Amino acid sequence: MKDVLAQADSQTEAALARLFELIRIPSVSTDPAHAGDCAAAADWLVRDLTLMGAEARAIPTLRHPMVLAHLPGPETTPHVLFYGHYDVQPPGDPALWSRPPFEPSLTPGPNGETHINGRGASDDKGAMMTFLEACRAWIATRGGLPLRVSVLIEGEEESGSASLAPFLAEHAAELRADAILACDSDQWDAETPAITVSTRGICSQEITVTTADRDLHSGIYGNAARNALTVLCDLLAGLRGPDGGIAIDGFHADIAPLDPSVAAAWERLHVDEAEFLGRVGLSHPAGEAGRSVLEQVWARPSCDIHGVWGGYTEPGFKTVIPREAHAKLSFRLAPGQDPDRIRALFQAHIRAHLPPDASVAFTDHTMGRGTAMPVSSPWLSAATEALEGEWGGAALIGMGGTIPILPMLKDAIGAEALLVGFASLGNRIHAPDEKYDLSSFTRGTRSWVRIIDALSRLDRAR
Amino acid sequence: MKDVLAQADSQTEAALARLFELIRIPSVSTDPAHAGDCAAAADWLVRDLTLMGAEARAIPTLRHPMVLAHLPGPETTPHVLFYGHYDVQPPGDPALWSRPPFEPSLTPGPNGETHINGRGASDDKGAMMTFLEACRAWIATRGGLPLRVSVLIEGEEESGSASLAPFLAEHAAELRADAILACDSDQWDAETPAITVSTRGICSQEITVTTADRDLHSGIYGNAARNALTVLCDLLAGLRGPDGGIAIDGFHADIAPLDPSVAAAWERLHVDEAEFLGRVGLSHPAGEAGRSVLEQVWARPSCDIHGVWGGYTEPGFKTVIPREAHAKLSFRLAPGQDPDRIRALFQAHIRAHLPPDASVAFTDHTMGRGTAMPVSSPWLSAATEALEGEWGGAALIGMGGTIPILPMLKDAIGAEALLVGFASLGNRIHAPDEKYDLSSFTRGTRSWVRIIDALSRLDRAR
Repeated sequence: MKDVLAQADSQTEAALARLFELIRIPSVSTDPAHAGDCAAAADWLVRDLTLMGAEARAIPTLRHPMVLAHLPGPETTPHVLFYGHYDVQPPGDPALWSRPPFEPSLTPGPNGETHINGRGASDDKGAMMTFLEACRAWIATRGGLPLRVSVLIEGEEESGSASLAPFLAEHAAELRADAILACDSDQWDAETPAITVSTRGICSQEITVTTADRDLHSGIYGNAARNALTVLCDLLAGLRGPDGGIAIDGFHADIAPLDPSVAAAWERLHVDEAEFLGRVGLSHPAGEAGRSVLEQVWARPSCDIHGVWGGYTEPGFKTVIPREAHAKLSFRLAPGQDPDRIRALFQAHIRAHLPPDASVAFTDHTMGRGTAMPVSSPWLSAATEALEGEWGGAALIGMGGTIPILPMLKDAIGAEALLVGFASLGNRIHAPDEKYDLSSFTRGTRSWVRIIDALSRLDRAR
Repeated sequence: MKDVLAQADSQTEAALARLFELIRIPSVSTDPAHAGDCAAAADWLVRDLTLMGAEARAIPTLRHPMVLAHLPGPETTPHVLFYGHYDVQPPGDPALWSRPPFEPSLTPGPNGETHINGRGASDDKGAMMTFLEACRAWIATRGGLPLRVSVLIEGEEESGSASLAPFLAEHAAELRADAILACDSDQWDAETPAITVSTRGICSQEITVTTADRDLHSGIYGNAARNALTVLCDLLAGLRGPDGGIAIDGFHADIAPLDPSVAAAWERLHVDEAEFLGRVGLSHPAGEAGRSVLEQVWARPSCDIHGVWGGYTEPGFKTVIPREAHAKLSFRLAPGQDPDRIRALFQAHIRAHLPPDASVAFTDHTMGRGTAMPVSSPWLSAATEALEGEWGGAALIGMGGTIPILPMLKDAIGAEALLVGFASLGNRIHAPDEKYDLSSFTRGTRSWVRIIDALSRLDRAR
């Protein structure tokens, strides 16, 4: 594939210009004000895929459109479906960004590398484009791909993927493939790309606690009146036990022990816990006592409070006893845990711990199951070898995050999913100053050129 | 005093017009944007007192001006100092008000009474004006007051009274008096005014918890990374024990047992706990087990969380692990508890319970000591008899709130303070739809006419 790799290298400048165009579209899916931008990002991808020779279209959903495209390949070769997402997280306070989040730029990094800056530079616009640029290099060099490729790019990954299940049901026949590919995950270190062998699930809830029939004055009722914020803090504090684990009855019932071969692969990564946490200004693993930091973030469930609000939060002071208090929180789930069951356990736990004169209401947010892939898959072996060809090594890792599409796609299509990642932990995804290393982009593209070649040689029946 | 009482009755329409002018000035002291309105309210009072014949002026402070006025009386009579405040609480969300908060109006109440509506209608503009209208009636009828009156009206009562201590020190000689009067408290029921024999103190704190050096993504760090909101909720939940009491070591050390004669007076009030809490949609006293609801709100310390904020609180969802979380809270204190000592105990408690990788910063807000007055005072007897003349009865009650000026004034001037109140619990002070009953306003004015008469007969030496 030297010719294809050379083509990939020679098109970098044009590829960056394409990526910058895409980053400039502020496709924040969680905020209804950005619905038009999400549609614009989908249209941009349809145009780009069409230019590449694909039969591509944006298909409307109840929220943001799906991009679906097919790139032809020889009849008898495997058929892979690549998944990505064009939507991004809200940028948050622009004052916390060094540069405007939707004005991409290249800047030199501290260790001689180059950063691609902007919201979505890594998650998932930059990462997703490595695959499309690899396909483009194949087509430019050889006039076509050596295997059949379908591309599915959604616009709701950062806000719950609500449209996916009905979309999969409606387009099941068109989406059928032999394997699923995705690029929304991390590489292991600066010199080692990674294939993710497990992902965590998620169960997200918003909770509203209500007490009296009005806000009260602590100088009149303070002590005797139930305070909604006090109740909320008590309830949230009660979700974790003194050992750092989750203190909800039955919560851990469906967690399978970690596959020993996976545990061994993780141990071989020789993670220095102090260094791992030190990168973000921390030093002590905050989760369950007696679990390694990798097990905590990859294989064990967690509970995080993402937002709390209630009462008087403006400048100055007000001695109010608030009647309403709110929180957004989520549980990351181990493979095997069912988000619907966890939601039921959580809500029952909260109701059981509610004091007198307090009521509670729940709203669902993102839900999704975790996944674990068999370590013996030929797709995994072929991709690992291809990565080793480019980098000299490849790691098998877990992912602490959730790709809700994965279990849905796997169930709907009956195929395994290969999650190949070139992102680094320093990319600050979901935070201000998100970036992607230029080398992640270029070597990621080269890696996909090789993986496409390796997978094209596999027997379709696996 | 029939002539003075008749004059008070006949001037009601003009008195309401004056009160409405004052309510229309949005003198919210906690919000710097309203500094001009606070100055306007002070100027309005100076004009009104000057028209009444007072030597009156607004004296600048570092924040909002003090109104100081002297109304002459016969040389040998007692000299009383009346205290009030022209500032008001922030109105909060205007959508929660039935009428605009700063456009006062009269509306019929459900039981045949008439409501004076608006922010400050009760606390303290309406209540304070009952005393000034009584003075005006005396002067209109008799050409002067039967005792010497000074008036001190501050503009920072709702936001910490920071200017008071330096003001008292600077004007100590001019402020000297034989007794302090105030009208910023509740009557007992629709037919019974009250004199408040104790007030609670307050120690207010704002707390900021910081963890990592940036916001993190729960899909990468969830479980291992310390979450600032989780830490904050744990700390706030840990402030109260399972019995509803405050769980800070040494917190209760300086609380004297309740004076048995006061306890007896409160028992004679025959409070129905269910009815007391039922008025605001509650049913169970939330404070220390084994204490009556009156003891909980009048004599025991409390801890209320007034505001919490942190993380993602906009529509939608964001799986952020926030690095910063904030709360505003206060302790109401029993007489005898020193707010500075409580602050030190609170901060030490928080620091002792801080987990690894979390730091904390504190900001002070309102601070003030509680007070308890001797039940045997001749000022108290004289005022009680005067109230009984107008109403047929009067109650001795406690106040769960704080008047930070009281211990300061008492210390600075060496005089006792008589807190006479005509407000009702239904007045929704500090909340939307604040009101004052028209009868509180008119009978309050008549009551002060009588109290002025009764106190003028006392021996100055007490």
